[in-house]
Amino acid sequence: MQYGYFDDAHREYVVQRPDTPAPWVNYLGSPEYGAIISNNAGGYSFAKSGANGRILRYVFNQFDRPGRYLYLRDNASGDFWSASWQPVGKDLQDYACECRHGMGYTRMLSDYAGIHAEAVYYVPKDSAHEVWELTVTNTTDAPRELTLTGYAEFTNHNNYEQDQVNLQYSLFISRTLFAGNRITQQIHGNLDAQPTDELVDGKNVTERFFGLAGADVASYCGDKEAFLGRYHDYGNPQGVLSGDLGNVLSYNENACGALSCVVKLAPGESRTVAFLLGMKPSEEAAALVAGYADPAARCAAEVEALKQDWYGRLDHLQVHTPDDAFNTMINTWNAYNCFITFVWSRAASLIYCGLRNGYGYRDTVQDIQGIIHLEPAMAKEKIRFMLSAQVDNGGGLPLVKFTHNPGHEDTPDDASYVAETGHPAYRADDALWLFPTVYKYVAETGDKAFLDEVIPFANRDEGTVYEHLKRAVQFSLDHLGPHGLPAGLYADWNDCLRLGANGESTFVALQFYYALEILRRFAADRGDEAACRHLEATMADTARKIQSLCWDGDRFIRGFTEEGQRIGAAADPEANLWLNPQSWAVISGLADKDQADRAMAQVYDRLNTAYGAVLMDPPYHAHAFEGALAVIYNPGTKENSGIFSQSQGWLILAEALCGHGERAFTYFTENAPAAQNDRAEVRRLEPYCYGQFTEGPASAHFGRSQVHWLTGTASTVMVGCVEGILGLRPDLNGLRLAPAVPAAWKSFTMDKDFRGKKLHIRVENPQGKESGFASLTLNGEALPDNYLPAHKLQAENDILLVL
Amino acid sequence: MQYGYFDDAHREYVVQRPDTPAPWVNYLGSPEYGAIISNNAGGYSFAKSGANGRILRYVFNQFDRPGRYLYLRDNASGDFWSASWQPVGKDLQDYACECRHGMGYTRMLSDYAGIHAEAVYYVPKDSAHEVWELTVTNTTDAPRELTLTGYAEFTNHNNYEQDQVNLQYSLFISRTLFAGNRITQQIHGNLDAQPTDELVDGKNVTERFFGLAGADVASYCGDKEAFLGRYHDYGNPQGVLSGDLGNVLSYNENACGALSCVVKLAPGESRTVAFLLGMKPSEEAAALVAGYADPAARCAAEVEALKQDWYGRLDHLQVHTPDDAFNTMINTWNAYNCFITFVWSRAASLIYCGLRNGYGYRDTVQDIQGIIHLEPAMAKEKIRFMLSAQVDNGGGLPLVKFTHNPGHEDTPDDASYVAETGHPAYRADDALWLFPTVYKYVAETGDKAFLDEVIPFANRDEGTVYEHLKRAVQFSLDHLGPHGLPAGLYADWNDCLRLGANGESTFVALQFYYALEILRRFAADRGDEAACRHLEATMADTARKIQSLCWDGDRFIRGFTEEGQRIGAAADPEANLWLNPQSWAVISGLADKDQADRAMAQVYDRLNTAYGAVLMDPPYHAHAFEGALAVIYNPGTKENSGIFSQSQGWLILAEALCGHGERAFTYFTENAPAAQNDRAEVRRLEPYCYGQFTEGPASAHFGRSQVHWLTGTASTVMVGCVEGILGLRPDLNGLRLAPAVPAAWKSFTMDKDFRGKKLHIRVENPQGKESGFASLTLNGEALPDNYLPAHKLQAENDILLVL
Repeated sequence: MQYGYFDDAHREYVVQRPDTPAPWVNYLGSPEYGAIISNNAGGYSFAKSGANGRILRYVFNQFDRPGRYLYLRDNASGDFWSASWQPVGKDLQDYACECRHGMGYTRMLSDYAGIHAEAVYYVPKDSAHEVWELTVTNTTDAPRELTLTGYAEFTNHNNYEQDQVNLQYSLFISRTLFAGNRITQQIHGNLDAQPTDELVDGKNVTERFFGLAGADVASYCGDKEAFLGRYHDYGNPQGVLSGDLGNVLSYNENACGALSCVVKLAPGESRTVAFLLGMKPSEEAAALVAGYADPAARCAAEVEALKQDWYGRLDHLQVHTPDDAFNTMINTWNAYNCFITFVWSRAASLIYCGLRNGYGYRDTVQDIQGIIHLEPAMAKEKIRFMLSAQVDNGGGLPLVKFTHNPGHEDTPDDASYVAETGHPAYRADDALWLFPTVYKYVAETGDKAFLDEVIPFANRDEGTVYEHLKRAVQFSLDHLGPHGLPAGLYADWNDCLRLGANGESTFVALQFYYALEILRRFAADRGDEAACRHLEATMADTARKIQSLCWDGDRFIRGFTEEGQRIGAAADPEANLWLNPQSWAVISGLADKDQADRAMAQVYDRLNTAYGAVLMDPPYHAHAFEGALAVIYNPGTKENSGIFSQSQGWLILAEALCGHGERAFTYFTENAPAAQNDRAEVRRLEPYCYGQFTEGPASAHFGRSQVHWLTGTASTVMVGCVEGILGLRPDLNGLRLAPAVPAAWKSFTMDKDFRGKKLHIRVENPQGKESGFASLTLNGEALPDNYLPAHKLQAENDILLVL
Repeated sequence: MQYGYFDDAHREYVVQRPDTPAPWVNYLGSPEYGAIISNNAGGYSFAKSGANGRILRYVFNQFDRPGRYLYLRDNASGDFWSASWQPVGKDLQDYACECRHGMGYTRMLSDYAGIHAEAVYYVPKDSAHEVWELTVTNTTDAPRELTLTGYAEFTNHNNYEQDQVNLQYSLFISRTLFAGNRITQQIHGNLDAQPTDELVDGKNVTERFFGLAGADVASYCGDKEAFLGRYHDYGNPQGVLSGDLGNVLSYNENACGALSCVVKLAPGESRTVAFLLGMKPSEEAAALVAGYADPAARCAAEVEALKQDWYGRLDHLQVHTPDDAFNTMINTWNAYNCFITFVWSRAASLIYCGLRNGYGYRDTVQDIQGIIHLEPAMAKEKIRFMLSAQVDNGGGLPLVKFTHNPGHEDTPDDASYVAETGHPAYRADDALWLFPTVYKYVAETGDKAFLDEVIPFANRDEGTVYEHLKRAVQFSLDHLGPHGLPAGLYADWNDCLRLGANGESTFVALQFYYALEILRRFAADRGDEAACRHLEATMADTARKIQSLCWDGDRFIRGFTEEGQRIGAAADPEANLWLNPQSWAVISGLADKDQADRAMAQVYDRLNTAYGAVLMDPPYHAHAFEGALAVIYNPGTKENSGIFSQSQGWLILAEALCGHGERAFTYFTENAPAAQNDRAEVRRLEPYCYGQFTEGPASAHFGRSQVHWLTGTASTVMVGCVEGILGLRPDLNGLRLAPAVPAAWKSFTMDKDFRGKKLHIRVENPQGKESGFASLTLNGEALPDNYLPAHKLQAENDILLVL
């Protein structure tokens, strides 16, 4: 079933049927001010932190309510509706609507009772407030009078838990005021007599505002219950029903901002107003609202600026392949998903309530990879930050606090860190994720000088980036298990797999092997021969151990518990084949061709499904070892034999590295949101963003995806597609072109910015290959292999690759 | 405005208008299984702990939803409604209803479309499940066919926060099954292959059930969203609309129990079914449901047993005065409120979400006082428990963990205790509350042997109750401030008043003085003369200090900060008169008559309002000292000049001790829920239970009460009324009768159980006094004063007191 379509020309997803199987949302804003809005205007807003800067309330896991509601009332008939289908929810026979989620804005169009309404929601670039622009047009032949009402439900406290749980406190600190064209909500308003720089019990006055521009306020309400009326709901608020908000304020109640204006429209006439919302001191808010005196012009300019900003970012790579779903994901939606995940980590969605107290180390380092090819400067800044959260022993802080203070942090070796973060120990893999991330950055940009940049460690001391990487390797060498492979410590990438502190994870061993290889490349490039020799020896030793200990004939096992039990061996009754050790054996370069073929074939035969490959199989049930925590989940769910989508990216990459274009693309298509646009009743999630996992065949809801937007899937699939399928593989000195595509792709083009140059690449595949190389021409010059040396590139480059 | 009335004969409050200004709730159950239900069937259930045993979901601070919904559908017309007005919310022109909250049960009656429905909700005595009995009667002349549907919305996890906040986990561990006549929800159902005594990551299978008795299941649904249908609400569930629940189960979704049956009713015919809900293993649940095969008979017997249990408890004191509101509060509702608060402390209401991690020391010790005159044995058990939470240095643990293990606990002196509980230090008053509580218990029962019972201390060591009390006194002596009064430590009763660790609180000093007096009485009774002498000397010394330091001419000040600043002095611009130091100067016996008269007059003139006396005045705003945290609240709210209702009890008692019957009764009436039954639009809270506070004149909503049910108000007002107004003052050897009543009360009677004897007391007041003593006759014998020596009492006693 299809609820909408991709308007690629406008980089919008257009929801045509508003009764979607889940709230389909968009993200607005920037790290300074975030907003989530669904196709029915549900969602919430926050300044900086979803947990500690919550401005608009949202009731999770209920009815996608409340939201940013715009009500329209025909004053002649008394009939009323909303600019989004919900919350009023008029009969869809009479009410036509469309929701267009774009890059940083969402546009709602509706037609009802002869009124065309258009609402545009956005956060202006470099701003910390949001705009709800509303334009109404009289499409009838008679004059009309409408009351337009905007409704914003404020939280009682910036902290999500205080607002939701500590009611006997947070209900009694809020009050609203009205002046001119806006409601002001004060939290701890009674502290207004204190000096502004003095806190009382850590608190001072916080002010939020909800303002109206472009029309005079006809009536207002600052009290949620008065606006709704008891035993009414968002669908039939008393204040909208009656056309009069009653000019009531709140004091010790749930506050809201509700403002109405009355507009008269001649036949064909349009009128635009704007509602403004944010958390700013009163005078600042007054000036801000005043700046929207001509809302139509100001809003048009601001939306245009947003688009240009996003388009500029996305235009650094644009591809045109025979597959529309692939194009829209790579050019727009997967890229957008990567930026959203990059900015908000796992902090704020309709599933994540914002209560993480910091950045997960590996999550964040992985997320960076998804944007390097588009915004390397932004990536570099975050890499720097994450390196500053590496402990001087080389390990990563499992959780990097939002208040991270490099050089002065406690570590998992300190009881204080454990108590504050809840993370009891180092994890085996955190710092190992730095290697592919730093490598991708340096290769994309050629910025080798970055390796010499000095960056503090989290707790004390400092070192060059190169030194940071060396210590990360040393951390693993300092923590080896009984077989000489990196010890499992608290856990590896799989939180639900506890091999024990001295257990050994094949996945980590393969990551470690790959890290050695990357560091070796850096060392070789720098002429650090001692390091090269040491790294090569360590690689050989590690490879020998992995091969002898972890290869089980047709698969790599998952690892060893600290009691020595082999996990993921062919003979195990459950969980005898795991996805990640197979894909990473290829990605790391450890597997020989025969192993790669066998392991990948096992994956395809045993783990693959119509919606991607499950993480392992069979699910744990009766034979879970003690650390197999995945058994707590229903079978086919999450780590217990769910299709854990992040792993699909590695699988795509691994198959592409093997030159298996068909399989790589199959894996992409099975799990790609856009490719399932016509199966929304199965997938349920937005058809334009990834989910954390898709339910596997062992679930009663095979194919349903879960935990939208904020997932490492965005970056791994992006890398799998760009480096893997498209074959854009930068290294330290240039760019290798090694596509692995479906045989049916006769040709495709890629426009890529690379180290300040423009590459216009055309790939031709006359013989219907899945991969390979016949010829490469750079600006008319034939090159000897599929490699573009950076020094040969001009400002603009015409490139033709024939497979 | 009046929404209902007290049916005293049935000990029920009858809600006649269902659109109450707030959810008006009742509590069902016992410590084993608690349930909260509103007059519109909203609310939730939990096993043992509101935080960790949550079974039914409730969205706090929204629309009083979801709840225990019973839907009725006329299969001929397709029209449907609910047994409570909400959630369907039929037009009250067509829908007649009544909600009767009784002692441990709630009965909903409705008439709509010719069907009379009666739903009775209760938790059977000594049981850990709940019953929703539904009887429908055809009041028309035509045969009718109805589909009856029960709906219970399960949480996804026993822990409230996991269910509400950690969605990316808790959404994926639940599933439902159906068999015969019940839905089973399994949490962590995949652990069913583990040995039942083995936990995986602390988890094992948890099963909840929702069953139907008295009719066959026609259709079922275990999936919330399937039951409701997307974009439907509790008011129009798809499954009810269509009359068919679709026989759908849940897997990785929000679960529910929804069961329908079809009943055919001849004219005048009735039919009873019962829905059963609980958290029990499947076989146990099956047997339990089977036990209700004849629901009408079984339910009638169970409700009758509940009533008898409650009536027996309440009958230990029954009074008949000229004031109906007073009678209903003392005989039924205040008493019931005391038991509910005693059982659930501050853990579970529609404001408290259940997330306290233990018992507050002073809260719990105070709460005990409210039930001593009704159930001394129950009180004794809790006193014993709280004594075991006293540290061997004599101080109380600010928070007593639910897992309290006497003799083995950490204390505020240990970092581990502070980290676990969040309580950084001892509080000055915690252990001082033991004195009036233990004294009331011993005086009520004559159980002096209790003083010799050996009870462990919280951390180590043990001692007699007498020794515990001595150490409590010693704790204060070991923590004196610079003026020699007990030091403020972390805080006193007023959480928002931080005088500093070395500050000194007049309130605590008065409590200490009172504690010395009580211990002196015990010592004297035991012939412990050394202790008597020591205590008398300490009392004299303490009295001298309080008098010289804290008396400010016409009031007692509130105390000293640790910097020596006087708080609550007459000359202060804000908060210059505080309620509690005045009432406690009287209660403690420290104030002389002149001081008492002046201080009480100040209170009456300056603090009293139409809804009780504010805690202090004027509210803090521009002149709050650093520890005056009350300034964070809106003026007129909570500790910032709100009418903090618990303090009304002390004020009633103090005025009564002064013999001021009029004032004592005025203070009772101003804040008594029942006395405001006709002002529900102002008070908002249930007219049958106390709230934590009433908004004061500085609030925009003067007179509105907040934070229902679980408040120390219940016990202090009960004590103020019983010991104060009614003048029932037991001491170690008998019972003093010293009523302080309105002059207009010509006579009243009290039937009281006392030390196993029945007292039938008649008080006559021919001269219209407020207090005093003219004569006392016991079984025809004139006694010399207003004292009944215990040894003179017979099994039944006729007592006549003339004022």
